[in-house]
Amino acid sequence: MDVNQFREFARSAVDFVADYLENIRDRPVLPSVEPGYLHKLLPEVVPEQPEQWQDVMKDIERVIMPGITNWQSPNFHAYYPTATSFPSIVGEMITSGLGIIGFSWICSPACTELEVVLMDWLGKFLDLPPSFLNCSEGPGGGVIQGSASEAILVAVLAAREQTVRRMKLDHPEMTESEIRGKLVSYSSDQSNSCVEKAGLLAAVPIRLIKADENGSLRGETLEAAILADIQSGLIPIICIATFGTTGTCAFDKMDELGPICKKYNIWLHIDAAYAGAALCCPELRSSMNGIDWADSFNFNLHKWMMVNFDCCAMWLKNADTLVEAFSVDRIYLSHQFQGESKAPDYRHWQIPLGRRFRALKVWIVLRTIGAENIRNNIRKQIKLAEMFENYVRADDRFEIVSARSMGLVCFRLKGDCSLTRQLLEKITERKKIYMIQATCNGKLMMRFVVAGLDPKESDVVFAWNEIAGESRKLLESTKIAPAEDVLTKLTNNFATTLTTAFHEEKLK
Amino acid sequence: MDVNQFREFARSAVDFVADYLENIRDRPVLPSVEPGYLHKLLPEVVPEQPEQWQDVMKDIERVIMPGITNWQSPNFHAYYPTATSFPSIVGEMITSGLGIIGFSWICSPACTELEVVLMDWLGKFLDLPPSFLNCSEGPGGGVIQGSASEAILVAVLAAREQTVRRMKLDHPEMTESEIRGKLVSYSSDQSNSCVEKAGLLAAVPIRLIKADENGSLRGETLEAAILADIQSGLIPIICIATFGTTGTCAFDKMDELGPICKKYNIWLHIDAAYAGAALCCPELRSSMNGIDWADSFNFNLHKWMMVNFDCCAMWLKNADTLVEAFSVDRIYLSHQFQGESKAPDYRHWQIPLGRRFRALKVWIVLRTIGAENIRNNIRKQIKLAEMFENYVRADDRFEIVSARSMGLVCFRLKGDCSLTRQLLEKITERKKIYMIQATCNGKLMMRFVVAGLDPKESDVVFAWNEIAGESRKLLESTKIAPAEDVLTKLTNNFATTLTTAFHEEKLK
Repeated sequence: MDVNQFREFARSAVDFVADYLENIRDRPVLPSVEPGYLHKLLPEVVPEQPEQWQDVMKDIERVIMPGITNWQSPNFHAYYPTATSFPSIVGEMITSGLGIIGFSWICSPACTELEVVLMDWLGKFLDLPPSFLNCSEGPGGGVIQGSASEAILVAVLAAREQTVRRMKLDHPEMTESEIRGKLVSYSSDQSNSCVEKAGLLAAVPIRLIKADENGSLRGETLEAAILADIQSGLIPIICIATFGTTGTCAFDKMDELGPICKKYNIWLHIDAAYAGAALCCPELRSSMNGIDWADSFNFNLHKWMMVNFDCCAMWLKNADTLVEAFSVDRIYLSHQFQGESKAPDYRHWQIPLGRRFRALKVWIVLRTIGAENIRNNIRKQIKLAEMFENYVRADDRFEIVSARSMGLVCFRLKGDCSLTRQLLEKITERKKIYMIQATCNGKLMMRFVVAGLDPKESDVVFAWNEIAGESRKLLESTKIAPAEDVLTKLTNNFATTLTTAFHEEKLK
Repeated sequence: MDVNQFREFARSAVDFVADYLENIRDRPVLPSVEPGYLHKLLPEVVPEQPEQWQDVMKDIERVIMPGITNWQSPNFHAYYPTATSFPSIVGEMITSGLGIIGFSWICSPACTELEVVLMDWLGKFLDLPPSFLNCSEGPGGGVIQGSASEAILVAVLAAREQTVRRMKLDHPEMTESEIRGKLVSYSSDQSNSCVEKAGLLAAVPIRLIKADENGSLRGETLEAAILADIQSGLIPIICIATFGTTGTCAFDKMDELGPICKKYNIWLHIDAAYAGAALCCPELRSSMNGIDWADSFNFNLHKWMMVNFDCCAMWLKNADTLVEAFSVDRIYLSHQFQGESKAPDYRHWQIPLGRRFRALKVWIVLRTIGAENIRNNIRKQIKLAEMFENYVRADDRFEIVSARSMGLVCFRLKGDCSLTRQLLEKITERKKIYMIQATCNGKLMMRFVVAGLDPKESDVVFAWNEIAGESRKLLESTKIAPAEDVLTKLTNNFATTLTTAFHEEKLK
């Protein structure tokens, strides 16, 4: 393919992406294929001769699109929102065009330095403690990781190595194996699966401590677990707290956990994968008190900050702990400017050696969208969740399981869990909207998350119509009389409030 | 930014990338900036209001490009080649436009299934043992990881957990901590830094065993190390062998290592990050005998197979070992089709939970370039390295340090290492070509790797002129008479051979 064919192919692909995102509501949010569908549509070997890009584009529609779950559709209400945005797509393309790998400063100074600058931009935007920033005096700093999973694993590994070093000094009578065999960590039973996985990978058991009835990890419970472990001769190393749990978007009580971690000399990490972005809105910070206690913190730009996956911001109060834990040097990796504070070799801050130029897309997104619109996009999504919550609350057939938090509403049909399960199965089968199940205090529930590239009030109405309609059918079939449909009554009223409050056209 | 602004912005970015890659030889391969240069060019906070994309594009040239090391330039001869290609750039853009996250089959069946199919395409293309393929009867399978670092870490962790499980069964008298404290692994002292780092991360010591004078890890040395460890009561778990070491592109002797790993029940992984792609050329397979012995294998598509970073292919003979080691399930991740063999939940095969749709760019590259051109691109790069090698051999001032291997020539100025160091410093200062240093058998050397988007004979001539010219100046300044310049003599002769053998226009 020569450069002129590339220009044609790429323009065609730009139009494909633009058309796809512009008309995404026309597609069912979930695909209709069965496992193995794609194997039948493709040959079994690499083609020997080149094919025309036009044929590949046709096959994307024929082969790929029927098997796509449309995460950018506003009818996607599963998991948490995953961003893409127009400027981010352009940024990703330029990055792949530059084709650089930024494992050290010399590999492309712009790659490292833009990341250093942007992590300070983001830290200030979120009003993080200054000690987290690259521009602070101390050893604090920020770095872009691929995902929250990696950030959490990095924190666990750094805490592990820090503790092992300390214990070896303090207890020369113990062997390193003995020390490693006694390490233990903490998180809540509401934390994301990747926390437990980080424990498996790091070979450090993670106690998943019972959260309170609101889904929050509390200080008293943590301290009891720590004391029991210390009494058994174990060595606590880290507590992974969560701002915005996956199930119900609950917030752990940092003001309680912080002093306890300090008391027992335990690393405190906060996983704020979804909710952390909301720190850029001053009025949303109250549920996230106590960040000052944390040793490290992560949130995903690819969840609520319009940067496409993968892009997880992570800060540490002492980034030297990473370099001490992960540093392996070779002569072929050395360069003249090593050790400069404005030019860290970020390879020592992460799991892999190679790293993409992710900062470029972040920079393009932040500049072309701007702080005010990013805040307003988060506020809009929360307002839409409130709108949905009001529909649920006004309908006697349903109950809210835990209070709406950020853009998430957790709800269920009153009565036996099997009703909710059947309803969700029916809705999933119809593929008009996509929600997933979770449990809270033993009850099965549905999670309604506001997501997609540009969700609108009409999308919430669409979702509620689907849910209410299917509930009616289900309850009729189970011979329970449906309650009054409250949709029309509420919609007009609420929609007016919402439209005046936000500038939707700016958020497109 | 609305969809029409996106179309304009993206088209402008396409032209930027096309122009950049078309004219990449006009830029010095190395940047001229000092650490901290970028901090002075940018404001300190996120802009409150959106800026025009046109201004951002201008800033890419003003702020970013001066700090870019041009990895796609054919004057880049450092590390190993890193791919980008026109179809891959398009693929990356479409992936970011779809904005899906493929951690389980239901998250986008096409994402999982295309990867399953393509890993079989690639496995057959490389003539891997059928037991590695997804389409084989057994538990073998392939998966795309981000980088070789991650593939190696995954292998080490899977081997670790497999051994711990086995030892717990076989030795119920030992505690899990005791077992973990005795684990040990092996690799050669020539393996990539990421192998040693995998050991740090996994908390499993990795013995870096001395390679022979050709840079190959030998069976006898490995067995001696294993026996010594077993006698000390340790438990060997894995040997990470290399096809194409970072320093000199040496190949470990699989036919020797394989039987020993089998004898002592040790997992055998092959890191073929760079050289593995050459398995698609039948005539290049001879140095890579014995793959059948391996339990797992990785190579980077982003090195020699025209797919942009990050994209590392990994195969395992028993992928169940990963699922057993890494599997953490939650109700919100469950779906109806779990456990289908054609629809694996790839999240259990890797470190993070989230995963990008990398298979799409691989598919687009393989189809639009085709098997024959991929082979010919590798052959062309090797021929260009041979051309460079001939220049070196014909010049009495230089010596070849280890035999040319694939597209890598390792050479030095005869005499004291300080000469080579000074020469490389001078060349690096001039920024016309970029090579890095390495050591081999105690000698400092320069590594000349053929790389860049579309390297040509004239680029090799350009590099040799630069090296020969600077050598002349250096040796004159140190009062040693320069030898005869052999460039002109050889070039015409060699260039003719090369042009007839390859179809350069197809590889553009």
